[in-house]
Amino acid sequence: MHLEQINSPEDLKKLTIPELEQLAQEIRETIIDVVAGKTGGHFAPNLGTVELTLALHYVFDSPRDKIVWDVGHQAYPHKLVTGRRDRFHTIRQEGGLSGFLQREESEHDQFGAGHASTSISAALGMAVAGQLKGEHFHTVAVIGDGALTGGMAYEALNNAGSLQVPLIVVLNDNEMSIAPNVGALAKYLSRIRTNTRYTQAKAEIERLLRRLPQGDLWLELSHRFLDGLKEIVYQTMIWEELGFTYFGPVDGHNIRELIETFQLVKKIRGPVFVHAITVKGKGYQPAEDDPFKHHSASVKVPGAPPSPPKYQDVFGETLTRLAEEDKRIVAITAAMPDGTGLLPFAKAHPDRFFDVGIAEQHAVTFAAGLATQGLRPVAAIYSTFLQRAYDQVIHDVCIQNLPVVFAMDRAGLVGEDGRTHHGVFDFAYLRCIPNMVIMAPKDEDELRHMLKTAIDYERGPIALRYPRGSGVGVPLLGDPHPLPIGKGELLQEGDDVAIIAIGATVLPAQRAAEILAEAGVEATVINARFVKPLDEALILEAARRTGLVVTVEDAQVAGGFGSAVLELFAREELRIPVACLGLPDRFFDHASQASLRKQAGIDAESIARRALALVRQHRGVTPQLR
Amino acid sequence: MHLEQINSPEDLKKLTIPELEQLAQEIRETIIDVVAGKTGGHFAPNLGTVELTLALHYVFDSPRDKIVWDVGHQAYPHKLVTGRRDRFHTIRQEGGLSGFLQREESEHDQFGAGHASTSISAALGMAVAGQLKGEHFHTVAVIGDGALTGGMAYEALNNAGSLQVPLIVVLNDNEMSIAPNVGALAKYLSRIRTNTRYTQAKAEIERLLRRLPQGDLWLELSHRFLDGLKEIVYQTMIWEELGFTYFGPVDGHNIRELIETFQLVKKIRGPVFVHAITVKGKGYQPAEDDPFKHHSASVKVPGAPPSPPKYQDVFGETLTRLAEEDKRIVAITAAMPDGTGLLPFAKAHPDRFFDVGIAEQHAVTFAAGLATQGLRPVAAIYSTFLQRAYDQVIHDVCIQNLPVVFAMDRAGLVGEDGRTHHGVFDFAYLRCIPNMVIMAPKDEDELRHMLKTAIDYERGPIALRYPRGSGVGVPLLGDPHPLPIGKGELLQEGDDVAIIAIGATVLPAQRAAEILAEAGVEATVINARFVKPLDEALILEAARRTGLVVTVEDAQVAGGFGSAVLELFAREELRIPVACLGLPDRFFDHASQASLRKQAGIDAESIARRALALVRQHRGVTPQLR
Repeated sequence: MHLEQINSPEDLKKLTIPELEQLAQEIRETIIDVVAGKTGGHFAPNLGTVELTLALHYVFDSPRDKIVWDVGHQAYPHKLVTGRRDRFHTIRQEGGLSGFLQREESEHDQFGAGHASTSISAALGMAVAGQLKGEHFHTVAVIGDGALTGGMAYEALNNAGSLQVPLIVVLNDNEMSIAPNVGALAKYLSRIRTNTRYTQAKAEIERLLRRLPQGDLWLELSHRFLDGLKEIVYQTMIWEELGFTYFGPVDGHNIRELIETFQLVKKIRGPVFVHAITVKGKGYQPAEDDPFKHHSASVKVPGAPPSPPKYQDVFGETLTRLAEEDKRIVAITAAMPDGTGLLPFAKAHPDRFFDVGIAEQHAVTFAAGLATQGLRPVAAIYSTFLQRAYDQVIHDVCIQNLPVVFAMDRAGLVGEDGRTHHGVFDFAYLRCIPNMVIMAPKDEDELRHMLKTAIDYERGPIALRYPRGSGVGVPLLGDPHPLPIGKGELLQEGDDVAIIAIGATVLPAQRAAEILAEAGVEATVINARFVKPLDEALILEAARRTGLVVTVEDAQVAGGFGSAVLELFAREELRIPVACLGLPDRFFDHASQASLRKQAGIDAESIARRALALVRQHRGVTPQLR
Repeated sequence: MHLEQINSPEDLKKLTIPELEQLAQEIRETIIDVVAGKTGGHFAPNLGTVELTLALHYVFDSPRDKIVWDVGHQAYPHKLVTGRRDRFHTIRQEGGLSGFLQREESEHDQFGAGHASTSISAALGMAVAGQLKGEHFHTVAVIGDGALTGGMAYEALNNAGSLQVPLIVVLNDNEMSIAPNVGALAKYLSRIRTNTRYTQAKAEIERLLRRLPQGDLWLELSHRFLDGLKEIVYQTMIWEELGFTYFGPVDGHNIRELIETFQLVKKIRGPVFVHAITVKGKGYQPAEDDPFKHHSASVKVPGAPPSPPKYQDVFGETLTRLAEEDKRIVAITAAMPDGTGLLPFAKAHPDRFFDVGIAEQHAVTFAAGLATQGLRPVAAIYSTFLQRAYDQVIHDVCIQNLPVVFAMDRAGLVGEDGRTHHGVFDFAYLRCIPNMVIMAPKDEDELRHMLKTAIDYERGPIALRYPRGSGVGVPLLGDPHPLPIGKGELLQEGDDVAIIAIGATVLPAQRAAEILAEAGVEATVINARFVKPLDEALILEAARRTGLVVTVEDAQVAGGFGSAVLELFAREELRIPVACLGLPDRFFDHASQASLRKQAGIDAESIARRALALVRQHRGVTPQLR
């Protein structure tokens, strides 16, 4: 076993190419074993980057040289060879390794990454800094073809191509992002991959190039020669138009070819673009056959009872059915057709389904354009990814008051994906925008009704946000019906304290009320349903009646739902004790959703404890929790 | 005069080409007369699009055909020929025409636009909607070469190129955005423009093409022929790689050529890219010579006293001086080197100045990359444009706690640019992010100290936001010195009410206190300085002492500064009357800053009135304002 001897990238440099190939095999087995067998996590993408990782760490000298991985879920092999082998089995688990990259985790993680398309910008910053400081190091950004569809990658290429600092961009081209890659760029890449005439000619040219004497002058001359030949043989590449020197396509699973290519490009001044072709799921037949399905693996606990349907599935199925009746409905996803639950919609209504690539900005303004023509676009975007389109939400949708529906999946604490993926800022960042209506369902059944509410709402933009994963297990009976805008739901009346909760915290709030009841405290429980507009009458009535309020949300307290309640009370001159429960002012690492909710103090027990403390303090009674 | 007879685009169609050329001249004179002479506004860009506008409205049938203008400040000629001639002299004035596009203003304004790079996304949405609804109309997006550097334009091209719906993208290429255009794409465009061999060949080919018999089959054949020839002559264009049919370069001031081109592309199915070369400021020699300077015109009132220095100039000069001592400082702008006041910096420290194009997303992550290497990047981005990089602020800067300085210009109500440009969401959207420090100076002198504070702050991200335009006229004495983080300033002590203000509202709050004093009410006035962290001790002391609090901010109240104070009071169980003054939950149109502040109730008189009402109600006294 070679892997056991790899404690840092330095150790790789001692191996021969056949040994590296054997090491690749071991890494692949480790990933299959740990991820598919134990922890779950991003799977297929990490199998595709094994050889790329080894070649990069063989040729470059991390951490002096900066290797910046885009998105991060292609970086498991990188973790395995940078001193984290022993902890690899803890990946994505509480207290364990992150499933993405984190600067605190290793000096070899140059830049944290969870969202796509950031690597070229970050790497360019490092390369420029190196030049300004007179330090000599190489900077490499490794970006997938999916992430390359994100606009910020193009902004970075445009900037890098003109700055002409040394920067190596490696395109990890596996013809997929999470779903099969879409868009014109994908077609373009595919033309390059399949153009045999070009590929053969390129191979010839590169063979020739390697035989030429080495040295800076020679390299430059031969490089020009290569350029000239390329232009004759096929065409200049988009990246060359943008100022990059293009090398490729390279076989991303051929360690020797990769090493030779990286050794070559290391010597080139200015920006270089290396196009590596990889196979997502490489080396694990089920994943090679269906990399879409194996993008990430989830591990079933044997004997576990069947879970209730997922929020995303209820969303997708409901929308699919609503669209049968309502021909105005169109669905938009930014490269998450599966994750958002939209596959049934895509199948049933292919002409009204749009996967625009990892392009949230475009997705939102595209939806706005559709809405101007009387259609009812539903932009299904994870809460954390809608941050990418914040300006478009304000500028293109809300200012124009266009009826776009935002289906914000993965809201609240998402669990194992960790700090980059929690959807906890949405209440604050949406609530301040005029014209926006914001809902959050208490369970998967209410999600159906809120979706219908959103579709029927003609007056402007409307957002519904719901958690990742399984619903709470309520029956889904009857057709979805619209809810009155700005009306909450009184779940239980009690005069000691009012617990006003929203979304996924409503059920814990109800359980908290049960706990309180056992201690003799009678709580009112309100399902607020709307963060904006608030059900002012319902909330004020309960607040005035009880004189004590606890608000609960799975979002940042600063500027969030509780904050909206405080603003209401200030306006209404209602001065009573209010405890705002929700996420405190810090980032939360990866752990199970249940654990995170406990850490944040928004689980049933914590809510009960806080409510009880409030009651004790202000009622002069001393009820005890059992 | 022809212009007098143009009440709608229909009227254009009756004119001959010589008459259109004469009309172009009249439009140009009207714009020069009104904008340079009276109202001020975006100047040079609108002189560049006169012929383009006439040709588009001559060939296409607005509003049935959808013409979507990017950014909007190229659309003055469009306004003049779409029934708004009589109101043109009211442009950018309160109650008058908007300086940008607004759907409510005219049925010919298909999509509102103030920020760049949105047109292709919106137009694609319309084109797709047309197809889904079986309606036959043409959709045209007119985008500048500057706006084309924005990532979302590329996301839209990528999507459009693969959807293959009929969509015409017209590139208005004037080699500039607001400043001279930057980036690799700009160089690429310049290569196309200057390649005479290509231009001549293209002219030949197109002459040939026009002589061919017309009709669908012929058109397609000749079109293929054109493609073939083009590839031989020069190279395929980036846009062709992305699935567009490319036409150009076309002389954007030759009405006949433009009309012929649009008539041709109208017949093509699928996405078409028309590359028109225009001259920014065309027809007005001073603007042609220096279009950068004449991007927008401001009108000097004769005899007006000299204004105090602008916030942006104080910022730029201070940073330039700090950077002399501190070699870690680098400055980044997204295509606003002049607007942000960074020109002196660019001149003094060219190697540490980066204009990345209209690319806020990249700007922020690029800054984060620089910060990882120990540099001190200052990202100078307007508050409204930082919305474009919201996810990058969270994901790349704050999660990693990197010391990036955000200099957020144009915060608060910006005045004549109107609803798309107000920087009023920043407190809410930044306050919810952990690790972020947020400051706002009360005047241009405090801005200097806050900038020094930000540069010296090593622990993480820090933002300072300041208004558009002239400072308040305080002396700028001595060197800038760092302020203690999270400490406010007690400006005046009084026991009747505490006015806690931030940023540009501090001075009005002080004036309000003077008004109150005349009515016998003694107010405490606090300059909060920090929205996050709040100076809790100072605020609580004043609140407890006075028992009545008024918060004031030039930002949305929902989730903003006042909201932070309410959260503090709830946590501390301080239950006193609090009035939160700031922007209510609606968008504000264009008007002077003074008028808007009055409308929002954050001018001195409004603050005094609100404070007085609070005092009357709760003190049982009846002081009167004189």
